[in-house]
Amino acid sequence: MCRVPKRYRLVIAYDGSEFAGWQIQPNGISVQEVLQAALKTVSSDTVIVHGSGRTDRGVHARGQVVHFDLEKEWKPAVLMRALNANLPDAVRVLQADTCSPSFHARRSAREKEYRYQIYNAEVVPPDLRHFRTHIRATLDIETMRIAAEFLVGRHDFAAFTANPNREVESTVRSLTKLTVTRRGSEVLIRARGDGFLYKMVRSIAGHLIRVGEGTVGPEETRVILESRTRTARVQTAPPEGLFLWRVYY
Amino acid sequence: MCRVPKRYRLVIAYDGSEFAGWQIQPNGISVQEVLQAALKTVSSDTVIVHGSGRTDRGVHARGQVVHFDLEKEWKPAVLMRALNANLPDAVRVLQADTCSPSFHARRSAREKEYRYQIYNAEVVPPDLRHFRTHIRATLDIETMRIAAEFLVGRHDFAAFTANPNREVESTVRSLTKLTVTRRGSEVLIRARGDGFLYKMVRSIAGHLIRVGEGTVGPEETRVILESRTRTARVQTAPPEGLFLWRVYY
Repeated sequence: MCRVPKRYRLVIAYDGSEFAGWQIQPNGISVQEVLQAALKTVSSDTVIVHGSGRTDRGVHARGQVVHFDLEKEWKPAVLMRALNANLPDAVRVLQADTCSPSFHARRSAREKEYRYQIYNAEVVPPDLRHFRTHIRATLDIETMRIAAEFLVGRHDFAAFTANPNREVESTVRSLTKLTVTRRGSEVLIRARGDGFLYKMVRSIAGHLIRVGEGTVGPEETRVILESRTRTARVQTAPPEGLFLWRVYY
Repeated sequence: MCRVPKRYRLVIAYDGSEFAGWQIQPNGISVQEVLQAALKTVSSDTVIVHGSGRTDRGVHARGQVVHFDLEKEWKPAVLMRALNANLPDAVRVLQADTCSPSFHARRSAREKEYRYQIYNAEVVPPDLRHFRTHIRATLDIETMRIAAEFLVGRHDFAAFTANPNREVESTVRSLTKLTVTRRGSEVLIRARGDGFLYKMVRSIAGHLIRVGEGTVGPEETRVILESRTRTARVQTAPPEGLFLWRVYY
Protein backbone atom coordinates (compact mmCIF):
# COMPACT_ATOMS: atom_id res chain seq x y z
CA MET A 1 0.00 0.00 0.00
CA CYS A 2 1.32 3.37 -0.90
CA ARG A 3 1.76 6.03 1.82
CA VAL A 4 0.38 8.89 -0.27
CA PRO A 5 -2.70 10.13 1.61
CA LYS A 6 -6.05 9.71 -0.10
CA ARG A 7 -8.17 12.77 -0.92
CA TYR A 8 -11.89 12.71 -0.13
CA ARG A 9 -14.68 14.92 -1.30
CA LEU A 10 -17.92 15.34 0.61
CA VAL A 11 -21.20 17.06 -0.13
CA ILE A 12 -22.56 18.35 3.16
CA ALA A 13 -25.71 20.09 4.36
CA TYR A 14 -26.23 22.10 7.51
CA ASP A 15 -28.74 24.04 9.53
CA GLY A 16 -26.85 27.32 9.76
CA SER A 17 -29.07 28.63 12.56
CA GLU A 18 -26.96 26.55 14.96
CA PHE A 19 -23.54 27.79 13.80
CA ALA A 20 -21.37 30.88 13.71
CA GLY A 21 -20.80 30.23 10.00
CA TRP A 22 -18.61 27.88 8.00
CA GLN A 23 -15.15 28.99 9.04
CA ILE A 24 -13.41 28.28 12.36
CA GLN A 25 -13.42 31.40 14.51
CA PRO A 26 -13.16 32.25 18.19
CA ASN A 27 -16.78 33.37 18.78
CA GLY A 28 -19.00 30.38 18.43
CA ILE A 29 -19.02 26.94 16.89
CA SER A 30 -18.42 26.66 13.15
CA VAL A 31 -19.32 23.91 10.72
CA GLN A 32 -15.66 23.48 9.74
CA GLU A 33 -14.78 22.90 13.40
CA VAL A 34 -17.38 20.18 14.01
CA LEU A 35 -16.41 18.45 10.77
CA GLN A 36 -12.73 18.46 11.72
CA ALA A 37 -13.63 17.17 15.20
CA ALA A 38 -15.72 14.33 13.71
CA LEU A 39 -12.84 13.43 11.36
CA LYS A 40 -10.44 13.39 14.30
CA THR A 41 -12.75 11.02 16.21
CA VAL A 42 -13.28 8.76 13.24
CA SER A 43 -9.80 8.64 11.73
CA SER A 44 -7.48 9.90 14.50
CA ASP A 45 -5.94 12.16 11.83
CA THR A 46 -5.80 15.89 12.50
CA VAL A 47 -6.97 17.23 9.17
CA ILE A 48 -7.93 20.55 7.71
CA VAL A 49 -11.23 20.51 5.89
CA HIS A 50 -11.30 22.85 2.89
CA GLY A 51 -14.71 24.18 1.89
CA SER A 52 -15.81 25.53 -1.48
CA GLY A 53 -16.21 28.86 0.28
CA ARG A 54 -17.36 30.40 3.52
CA THR A 55 -20.95 30.81 4.53
CA ASP A 56 -21.83 33.48 7.10
CA ARG A 57 -23.40 33.04 10.50
CA GLY A 58 -26.95 31.74 10.10
CA VAL A 59 -26.61 30.76 6.42
CA HIS A 60 -27.59 27.18 5.57
CA ALA A 61 -26.23 24.68 3.07
CA ARG A 62 -27.76 21.88 1.07
CA GLY A 63 -24.69 21.32 -1.09
CA GLN A 64 -21.49 22.66 0.46
CA VAL A 65 -18.53 20.73 -0.97
CA VAL A 66 -15.38 20.04 1.03
CA HIS A 67 -12.15 18.11 0.58
CA PHE A 68 -9.47 16.75 2.91
CA ASP A 69 -6.74 14.10 2.97
CA LEU A 70 -6.63 11.02 5.18
CA GLU A 71 -3.74 8.60 5.74
CA LYS A 72 -6.00 5.56 5.86
CA GLU A 73 -8.00 4.45 2.88
CA TRP A 74 -11.74 4.47 3.54
CA LYS A 75 -14.67 3.20 1.58
CA PRO A 76 -16.56 6.46 0.98
CA ALA A 77 -19.87 4.99 2.18
CA VAL A 78 -18.26 3.78 5.42
CA LEU A 79 -16.59 7.15 6.01
CA MET A 80 -19.90 8.91 5.40
CA ARG A 81 -21.73 6.75 7.93
CA ALA A 82 -18.95 7.10 10.51
CA LEU A 83 -18.96 10.90 10.14
CA ASN A 84 -22.75 11.15 10.36
CA ALA A 85 -22.64 9.08 13.56
CA ASN A 86 -20.19 11.61 15.05
CA LEU A 87 -21.57 14.92 13.79
CA PRO A 88 -24.22 17.03 15.54
CA ASP A 89 -27.58 16.50 13.84
CA ALA A 90 -27.45 20.02 12.39
CA VAL A 91 -24.71 18.83 9.98
CA ARG A 92 -25.00 15.87 7.64
CA VAL A 93 -22.78 14.32 5.00
CA LEU A 94 -25.05 13.71 2.01
CA GLN A 95 -22.44 12.21 -0.29
CA ALA A 96 -18.82 11.02 -0.04
CA ASP A 97 -16.32 10.12 -2.75
CA THR A 98 -12.61 9.72 -3.21
CA CYS A 99 -11.16 12.22 -5.67
CA SER A 100 -7.98 13.13 -7.47
CA PRO A 101 -5.27 14.80 -5.32
CA SER A 102 -5.54 17.73 -7.73
CA PHE A 103 -9.17 18.38 -6.75
CA HIS A 104 -9.64 21.45 -4.56
CA ALA A 105 -13.11 22.28 -3.20
CA ARG A 106 -12.62 26.04 -3.63
CA ARG A 107 -10.16 26.39 -6.50
CA SER A 108 -11.72 23.71 -8.72
CA ALA A 109 -15.24 25.15 -8.38
CA ARG A 110 -16.62 26.47 -11.67
CA GLU A 111 -19.98 27.78 -10.49
CA LYS A 112 -22.17 27.94 -7.42
CA GLU A 113 -25.89 28.09 -6.92
CA TYR A 114 -27.45 29.83 -3.96
CA ARG A 115 -31.15 29.85 -3.10
CA TYR A 116 -32.79 32.60 -1.12
CA GLN A 117 -36.14 31.50 0.31
CA ILE A 118 -38.77 34.03 1.34
CA TYR A 119 -42.04 33.33 3.12
CA ASN A 120 -44.34 36.05 1.87
CA ALA A 121 -47.37 36.15 4.17
CA GLU A 122 -48.56 37.73 7.39
CA VAL A 123 -47.09 34.88 9.48
CA VAL A 124 -44.47 32.15 8.85
CA PRO A 125 -45.50 28.57 9.76
CA PRO A 126 -43.25 27.47 12.68
CA ASP A 127 -41.74 24.50 10.84
CA LEU A 128 -40.14 26.96 8.39
CA ARG A 129 -39.19 29.67 10.89
CA HIS A 130 -35.41 29.08 10.82
CA PHE A 131 -35.23 28.58 7.04
CA ARG A 132 -37.18 31.41 5.45
CA THR A 133 -36.89 35.18 5.43
CA HIS A 134 -40.22 36.65 6.43
CA ILE A 135 -41.63 39.41 4.22
CA ARG A 136 -45.16 40.60 5.02
CA ALA A 137 -45.87 42.95 2.09
CA THR A 138 -46.98 41.04 -0.99
CA LEU A 139 -44.00 40.94 -3.36
CA ASP A 140 -44.50 41.80 -7.01
CA ILE A 141 -42.65 38.96 -8.69
CA GLU A 142 -42.86 40.57 -12.13
CA THR A 143 -40.95 43.71 -11.14
CA MET A 144 -38.43 41.57 -9.25
CA ARG A 145 -37.83 39.66 -12.48
CA ILE A 146 -37.29 42.86 -14.43
CA ALA A 147 -34.73 43.99 -11.84
CA ALA A 148 -33.04 40.56 -11.88
CA GLU A 149 -32.55 40.77 -15.64
CA PHE A 150 -30.28 43.83 -15.23
CA LEU A 151 -27.97 41.81 -12.97
CA VAL A 152 -27.53 38.71 -15.12
CA GLY A 153 -24.23 38.66 -17.01
CA ARG A 154 -20.65 39.76 -16.38
CA HIS A 155 -20.62 42.91 -14.25
CA ASP A 156 -18.72 44.78 -11.59
CA PHE A 157 -20.84 43.93 -8.52
CA ALA A 158 -19.12 46.41 -6.17
CA ALA A 159 -22.53 47.98 -5.41
CA PHE A 160 -23.82 44.56 -4.29
CA THR A 161 -21.16 43.50 -1.82
CA ALA A 162 -21.19 44.43 1.85
CA ASN A 163 -17.64 45.70 2.07
CA PRO A 164 -16.01 46.17 -1.32
CA ASN A 165 -12.70 47.19 0.24
CA ARG A 166 -12.47 44.06 2.32
CA GLU A 167 -10.12 42.31 -0.06
CA VAL A 168 -7.96 43.72 -2.81
CA GLU A 169 -9.44 41.83 -5.68
CA SER A 170 -11.65 42.33 -8.65
CA THR A 171 -15.34 42.82 -7.94
CA VAL A 172 -16.26 41.59 -11.43
CA ARG A 173 -18.29 38.38 -11.46
CA SER A 174 -20.47 36.50 -13.92
CA LEU A 175 -24.01 35.90 -12.75
CA THR A 176 -25.26 33.21 -15.14
CA LYS A 177 -28.75 32.83 -13.66
CA LEU A 178 -30.97 34.94 -11.41
CA THR A 179 -34.59 33.82 -11.25
CA VAL A 180 -37.54 34.72 -9.05
CA THR A 181 -40.44 32.29 -8.70
CA ARG A 182 -43.50 32.04 -6.50
CA ARG A 183 -45.41 28.99 -5.25
CA GLY A 184 -48.18 30.08 -2.92
CA SER A 185 -46.57 32.06 -0.11
CA GLU A 186 -43.08 30.83 -1.01
CA VAL A 187 -40.91 33.16 -3.08
CA LEU A 188 -37.63 31.67 -4.28
CA ILE A 189 -34.62 33.55 -5.66
CA ARG A 190 -32.04 31.36 -7.39
CA ALA A 191 -28.63 32.81 -8.17
CA ARG A 192 -25.97 30.94 -10.08
CA GLY A 193 -22.60 32.31 -11.04
CA ASP A 194 -18.86 31.77 -11.32
CA GLY A 195 -18.21 33.38 -7.97
CA PHE A 196 -19.89 35.52 -5.34
CA LEU A 197 -18.49 38.48 -3.41
CA TYR A 198 -18.91 38.92 0.34
CA LYS A 199 -22.67 39.09 1.10
CA MET A 200 -23.39 39.46 -2.62
CA VAL A 201 -26.39 37.09 -2.69
CA ARG A 202 -27.92 38.71 0.39
CA SER A 203 -27.36 42.17 -1.13
CA ILE A 204 -29.03 41.11 -4.37
CA ALA A 205 -31.89 39.48 -2.41
CA GLY A 206 -32.25 42.59 -0.25
CA HIS A 207 -32.44 44.75 -3.37
CA LEU A 208 -34.94 42.47 -5.13
CA ILE A 209 -37.13 42.41 -2.00
CA ARG A 210 -37.26 46.23 -1.97
CA VAL A 211 -38.14 46.20 -5.65
CA GLY A 212 -40.86 43.61 -5.00
CA GLU A 213 -42.23 45.73 -2.15
CA GLY A 214 -42.34 48.75 -4.48
CA THR A 215 -39.80 50.79 -2.48
CA VAL A 216 -37.30 50.89 -5.36
CA GLY A 217 -38.14 50.87 -9.07
CA PRO A 218 -36.77 47.91 -11.03
CA GLU A 219 -34.98 50.19 -13.51
CA GLU A 220 -32.97 51.65 -10.63
CA THR A 221 -31.11 48.32 -10.56
CA ARG A 222 -29.08 49.37 -13.58
CA VAL A 223 -28.22 52.74 -12.03
CA ILE A 224 -27.10 51.10 -8.78
CA LEU A 225 -25.08 48.43 -10.61
CA GLU A 226 -23.33 51.01 -12.81
CA SER A 227 -22.54 53.24 -9.80
CA ARG A 228 -20.17 50.49 -8.56
CA THR A 229 -20.65 51.96 -5.11
CA ARG A 230 -22.37 50.37 -2.18
CA THR A 231 -24.85 52.74 -0.58
CA ALA A 232 -27.87 52.41 1.74
CA ARG A 233 -30.05 51.99 -1.37
CA VAL A 234 -29.01 48.34 -1.27
CA GLN A 235 -29.79 46.50 1.94
CA THR A 236 -28.42 43.13 2.98
CA ALA A 237 -31.23 40.61 3.44
CA PRO A 238 -31.06 38.45 6.61
CA PRO A 239 -29.17 35.13 6.56
CA GLU A 240 -31.96 32.73 7.53
CA GLY A 241 -33.41 32.49 4.00
CA LEU A 242 -30.07 31.74 2.34
CA PHE A 243 -28.88 28.27 1.29
CA LEU A 244 -25.64 27.37 -0.49
CA TRP A 245 -27.48 24.96 -2.75
CA ARG A 246 -24.91 23.42 -5.08
CA VAL A 247 -21.31 23.75 -6.26
CA TYR A 248 -20.49 22.87 -9.85
CA TYR A 249 -17.09 21.45 -10.88
CA MET B 1 -72.68 46.73 24.47
CA CYS B 2 -74.06 43.30 25.12
CA ARG B 3 -72.49 41.10 27.80
CA VAL B 4 -72.65 37.87 25.76
CA PRO B 5 -69.06 36.76 25.24
CA LYS B 6 -67.74 36.74 21.69
CA ARG B 7 -66.56 33.51 20.09
CA TYR B 8 -63.28 33.50 18.15
CA ARG B 9 -61.88 31.00 15.73
CA LEU B 10 -58.16 30.68 15.00
CA VAL B 11 -56.13 28.72 12.49
CA ILE B 12 -52.86 27.83 14.16
CA ALA B 13 -49.62 26.11 13.15
CA TYR B 14 -47.03 24.51 15.38
CA ASP B 15 -43.71 22.74 15.43
CA GLY B 16 -44.78 19.63 17.32
CA SER B 17 -41.19 18.60 18.07
CA GLU B 18 -41.25 21.10 20.93
CA PHE B 19 -44.50 19.90 22.56
CA ALA B 20 -46.00 16.94 24.36
CA GLY B 21 -48.95 17.10 21.94
CA TRP B 22 -52.03 19.27 21.63
CA GLN B 23 -53.82 18.50 24.87
CA ILE B 24 -52.94 19.73 28.35
CA GLN B 25 -51.33 16.94 30.35
CA PRO B 26 -48.99 16.63 33.33
CA ASN B 27 -45.86 15.41 31.50
CA GLY B 28 -44.63 18.20 29.32
CA ILE B 29 -45.84 21.39 27.73
CA SER B 30 -48.79 21.18 25.36
CA VAL B 31 -49.90 23.53 22.60
CA GLN B 32 -53.28 24.02 24.28
CA GLU B 33 -51.49 25.13 27.47
CA VAL B 34 -49.32 27.78 25.80
CA LEU B 35 -52.32 29.08 23.84
CA GLN B 36 -54.40 29.41 27.01
CA ALA B 37 -51.47 31.11 28.77
CA ALA B 38 -51.08 33.61 25.89
CA LEU B 39 -54.84 34.33 25.99
CA LYS B 40 -54.62 34.89 29.74
CA THR B 41 -51.75 37.36 29.25
CA VAL B 42 -53.49 39.17 26.42
CA SER B 43 -57.09 39.28 27.65
CA SER B 44 -56.88 38.54 31.41
CA ASP B 45 -59.67 36.00 30.78
CA THR B 46 -59.14 32.41 31.87
CA VAL B 47 -60.43 30.57 28.85
CA ILE B 48 -60.53 27.03 27.61
CA VAL B 49 -59.31 26.65 24.04
CA HIS B 50 -61.14 23.92 22.14
CA GLY B 51 -59.21 22.30 19.28
CA SER B 52 -60.58 20.44 16.27
CA GLY B 53 -58.92 17.37 17.76
CA ARG B 54 -55.81 16.20 19.57
CA THR B 55 -52.46 15.76 17.94
CA ASP B 56 -49.95 13.42 19.60
CA ARG B 57 -46.53 14.25 20.97
CA GLY B 58 -44.24 15.29 18.11
CA VAL B 59 -47.01 15.78 15.52
CA HIS B 60 -47.05 19.16 13.75
CA ALA B 61 -49.87 21.36 12.51
CA ARG B 62 -50.21 23.77 9.62
CA GLY B 63 -53.96 24.21 10.03
CA GLN B 64 -55.23 23.24 13.49
CA VAL B 65 -58.49 25.11 14.16
CA VAL B 66 -59.52 26.23 17.64
CA HIS B 67 -62.31 28.24 19.21
CA PHE B 68 -62.80 30.04 22.55
CA ASP B 69 -64.93 32.81 24.04
CA LEU B 70 -63.70 36.17 25.33
CA GLU B 71 -65.59 38.78 27.34
CA LYS B 72 -64.01 41.68 25.53
CA GLU B 73 -64.60 42.30 21.86
CA TRP B 74 -61.39 42.17 19.82
CA LYS B 75 -60.60 43.01 16.25
CA PRO B 76 -59.42 39.60 15.00
CA ALA B 77 -56.23 41.06 13.43
CA VAL B 78 -55.34 42.77 16.71
CA LEU B 79 -55.99 39.61 18.72
CA MET B 80 -53.83 37.61 16.29
CA ARG B 81 -50.90 40.00 16.61
CA ALA B 82 -51.22 40.15 20.42
CA LEU B 83 -51.25 36.34 20.65
CA ASN B 84 -48.29 35.92 18.31
CA ALA B 85 -46.33 38.42 20.43
CA ASN B 86 -46.99 36.25 23.51
CA LEU B 87 -46.65 32.74 22.11
CA PRO B 88 -43.41 30.74 21.90
CA ASP B 89 -42.09 30.86 18.33
CA ALA B 90 -42.96 27.18 17.83
CA VAL B 91 -46.67 28.18 17.76
CA ARG B 92 -48.20 30.77 15.44
CA VAL B 93 -51.67 32.05 14.80
CA LEU B 94 -52.05 32.12 11.01
CA GLN B 95 -55.61 33.44 10.89
CA ALA B 96 -58.17 34.84 13.33
CA ASP B 97 -61.91 35.48 12.91
CA THR B 98 -64.97 35.98 15.01
CA CYS B 99 -67.55 33.27 14.54
CA SER B 100 -71.07 32.28 15.49
CA PRO B 101 -71.53 31.06 19.10
CA SER B 102 -72.78 27.82 17.56
CA PHE B 103 -69.42 27.12 15.92
CA HIS B 104 -67.43 24.36 17.63
CA ALA B 105 -63.90 23.55 16.41
CA ARG B 106 -64.35 19.79 16.93
CA ARG B 107 -68.08 19.20 16.54
CA SER B 108 -68.55 21.45 13.51
CA ALA B 109 -65.64 19.90 11.58
CA ARG B 110 -66.76 18.06 8.45
CA GLU B 111 -63.42 16.77 7.21
CA LYS B 112 -59.72 16.91 8.02
CA GLU B 113 -56.61 16.64 5.91
CA TYR B 114 -53.38 15.22 7.27
CA ARG B 115 -50.08 15.13 5.42
CA TYR B 116 -47.39 12.60 6.13
CA GLN B 117 -44.01 13.71 4.77
CA ILE B 118 -41.23 11.21 4.11
CA TYR B 119 -37.67 11.98 3.11
CA ASN B 120 -36.65 9.00 1.03
CA ALA B 121 -32.87 9.06 0.70
CA GLU B 122 -29.73 7.88 2.45
CA VAL B 123 -29.58 11.06 4.57
CA VAL B 124 -32.09 13.81 5.51
CA PRO B 125 -30.92 17.43 4.99
CA PRO B 126 -30.67 19.01 8.48
CA ASP B 127 -33.19 21.79 7.73
CA LEU B 128 -35.88 19.10 7.35
CA ARG B 129 -34.78 16.80 10.19
CA HIS B 130 -37.64 17.57 12.59
CA PHE B 131 -40.33 17.57 9.88
CA ARG B 132 -39.79 14.46 7.81
CA THR B 133 -39.83 10.75 8.51
CA HIS B 134 -36.61 9.25 7.20
CA ILE B 135 -36.89 6.14 5.02
CA ARG B 136 -33.68 4.90 3.40
CA ALA B 137 -35.00 2.13 1.12
CA THR B 138 -36.36 3.54 -2.13
CA LEU B 139 -40.14 3.48 -1.88
CA ASP B 140 -42.17 2.10 -4.75
CA ILE B 141 -44.83 4.77 -5.14
CA GLU B 142 -46.89 2.70 -7.56
CA THR B 143 -47.47 -0.18 -5.14
CA MET B 144 -48.19 2.33 -2.35
CA ARG B 145 -50.89 3.81 -4.57
CA ILE B 146 -52.43 0.39 -5.20
CA ALA B 147 -52.53 -0.23 -1.43
CA ALA B 148 -53.97 3.25 -0.80
CA GLU B 149 -56.85 2.55 -3.19
CA PHE B 150 -58.08 -0.31 -0.95
CA LEU B 151 -58.39 2.13 1.96
CA VAL B 152 -60.33 4.93 0.26
CA GLY B 153 -64.04 4.89 1.10
CA ARG B 154 -66.20 4.08 4.11
CA HIS B 155 -64.64 1.24 6.11
CA ASP B 156 -64.15 -0.13 9.58
CA PHE B 157 -60.59 1.01 10.29
CA ALA B 158 -60.15 -1.03 13.50
CA ALA B 159 -57.02 -2.66 11.97
CA PHE B 160 -55.52 0.82 11.44
CA THR B 161 -55.88 2.35 14.88
CA ALA B 162 -53.34 1.90 17.66
CA ASN B 163 -55.76 0.88 20.38
CA PRO B 164 -59.24 0.10 19.07
CA ASN B 165 -60.60 -0.52 22.58
CA ARG B 166 -59.52 2.88 23.81
CA GLU B 167 -62.95 4.42 23.41
CA VAL B 168 -66.31 2.77 23.07
CA GLU B 169 -67.24 4.10 19.69
CA SER B 170 -67.56 3.05 16.12
CA THR B 171 -64.33 2.49 14.22
CA VAL B 172 -66.05 3.17 10.91
CA ARG B 173 -64.75 6.22 9.09
CA SER B 174 -64.86 7.64 5.57
CA LEU B 175 -61.49 8.22 3.97
CA THR B 176 -62.31 10.48 1.03
CA LYS B 177 -58.76 10.88 -0.28
CA LEU B 178 -55.49 8.99 0.17
CA THR B 179 -52.77 9.92 -2.30
CA VAL B 180 -49.08 9.18 -2.56
CA THR B 181 -46.82 11.47 -4.57
CA ARG B 182 -43.09 11.86 -5.06
CA ARG B 183 -41.02 14.96 -5.83
CA GLY B 184 -37.34 14.05 -5.86
CA SER B 185 -36.54 12.57 -2.45
CA GLU B 186 -39.79 13.84 -0.93
CA VAL B 187 -42.67 11.37 -0.68
CA LEU B 188 -45.97 12.84 0.45
CA ILE B 189 -49.02 10.95 1.71
CA ARG B 190 -52.23 13.01 1.88
CA ALA B 191 -55.18 11.65 3.81
CA ARG B 192 -58.53 13.37 3.94
CA GLY B 193 -61.59 12.07 5.70
CA ASP B 194 -64.57 12.75 7.90
CA GLY B 195 -62.73 11.65 11.01
CA PHE B 196 -59.62 9.81 12.09
CA LEU B 197 -59.19 7.22 14.85
CA TYR B 198 -56.34 7.28 17.36
CA LYS B 199 -53.04 7.00 15.42
CA MET B 200 -54.97 6.10 12.26
CA VAL B 201 -52.93 8.29 9.89
CA ARG B 202 -49.65 7.03 11.33
CA SER B 203 -50.90 3.43 11.08
CA ILE B 204 -51.89 3.93 7.44
CA ALA B 205 -48.56 5.67 6.73
CA GLY B 206 -46.65 2.87 8.50
CA HIS B 207 -48.49 0.29 6.39
CA LEU B 208 -47.95 2.18 3.12
CA ILE B 209 -44.24 2.53 3.92
CA ARG B 210 -43.91 -1.23 4.39
CA VAL B 211 -45.73 -1.76 1.10
CA GLY B 212 -43.40 0.76 -0.60
CA GLU B 213 -40.38 -1.03 0.85
CA GLY B 214 -41.70 -4.33 -0.52
CA THR B 215 -42.13 -5.95 2.92
CA VAL B 216 -45.89 -6.30 2.50
CA GLY B 217 -47.76 -6.84 -0.76
CA PRO B 218 -50.26 -4.10 -1.68
CA GLU B 219 -53.12 -6.61 -1.98
CA GLU B 220 -52.61 -7.56 1.68
CA THR B 221 -54.12 -4.16 2.51
CA ARG B 222 -57.60 -5.47 1.80
CA VAL B 223 -57.01 -8.57 3.97
CA ILE B 224 -55.75 -6.44 6.87
CA LEU B 225 -58.61 -3.96 6.52
CA GLU B 226 -61.23 -6.73 6.45
CA SER B 227 -59.69 -8.46 9.47
CA ARG B 228 -60.77 -5.46 11.59
CA THR B 229 -58.01 -6.47 14.00
CA ARG B 230 -54.88 -4.58 14.78
CA THR B 231 -51.82 -6.85 14.59
CA ALA B 232 -48.06 -6.35 14.22
CA ARG B 233 -48.55 -6.47 10.44
CA VAL B 234 -49.45 -2.79 10.71
CA GLN B 235 -46.80 -0.57 12.27
CA THR B 236 -47.31 2.98 13.49
CA ALA B 237 -45.06 5.38 11.58
CA PRO B 238 -43.17 7.96 13.72
CA PRO B 239 -44.78 11.35 14.50
CA GLU B 240 -42.18 13.71 13.00
CA GLY B 241 -43.49 13.38 9.42
CA LEU B 242 -47.11 14.09 10.35
CA PHE B 243 -48.91 17.42 9.92
CA LEU B 244 -52.53 18.24 10.67
CA TRP B 245 -52.83 20.23 7.45
CA ARG B 246 -56.37 21.55 7.27
CA VAL B 247 -59.80 21.26 8.87
CA TYR B 248 -62.88 21.68 6.68
CA TYR B 249 -66.17 23.09 8.02
